Amino acid sequence: MAHPDDGLDGAEGFRVMQEPLPQPMRIYVCTTCRAEGDASDGPRAGTRLFDALKAADAALDLVPVECLSVCKRACTVSFAATGKWTYVYGDLPAEAAVPVIREAARLYAEAPDGLIPWKLRPDAIKKGVVARIPPLPIEISRP
Amino acid sequence: MAHPDDGLDGAEGFRVMQEPLPQPMRIYVCTTCRAEGDASDGPRAGTRLFDALKAADAALDLVPVECLSVCKRACTVSFAATGKWTYVYGDLPAEAAVPVIREAARLYAEAPDGLIPWKLRPDAIKKGVVARIPPLPIEISRP
Repeated sequence: MAHPDDGLDGAEGFRVMQEPLPQPMRIYVCTTCRAEGDASDGPRAGTRLFDALKAADAALDLVPVECLSVCKRACTVSFAATGKWTYVYGDLPAEAAVPVIREAARLYAEAPDGLIPWKLRPDAIKKGVVARIPPLPIEISRP
Repeated sequence: MAHPDDGLDGAEGFRVMQEPLPQPMRIYVCTTCRAEGDASDGPRAGTRLFDALKAADAALDLVPVECLSVCKRACTVSFAATGKWTYVYGDLPAEAAVPVIREAARLYAEAPDGLIPWKLRPDAIKKGVVARIPPLPIEISRP
């Protein structure tokens, strides 16, 4: 049996094809996350991750957050976009997580519902998942 | 120092007073969550929790979800509302969690930003927090 969170829609396990829309997505980064070995007078692992992501890709919509309440699994980020599933990932190795976060963000942006197909998910994203939350209904208004 | 997630806004630790608006909130309940001791041929703990919440309060906007990806901390629920912080809670004791979820939901609905003041949070909600995610910006349109 497929895992319920396998990035597939429908009982038969196939995805309804649709044009991926360029949905704006946001990445929340917990800047309070502290890693083992962090110097008490230096920037925390979460802050270092935020700064490294910002330096690596100016196109990312990065928002620093004081505590995502996942304190035992630093570093932590969340992907969110209107109409998509929200994901929270932890156990990320600060600066070293930049490439995997960028790759996962690209896949998330491409997925119409935010569900990245299981096989495409980087290992750190498979193992680091903390939670996922369905999208709230969107009110569609026509001008 | 106050914990960053203490339900207070502002550097001085006071909440800007405003009329609480009756915001519609939604409760997602993971119906796949399995508890130790669940009979293999009976309903899972998550499904029992969903059914018990539904029976207890017809006014709740309950949505069953196949997997919130918090499989190691059954049972699991999430509170969400447009413009409010999203919360994910785990370690909930199936049917026995109904009163605490109803109380926390009432407090969440009353909180303009979804942040329940720390002192008012039921213990199971303090200890069971899995993650919190800030609200996405709301587009305000005037007809």
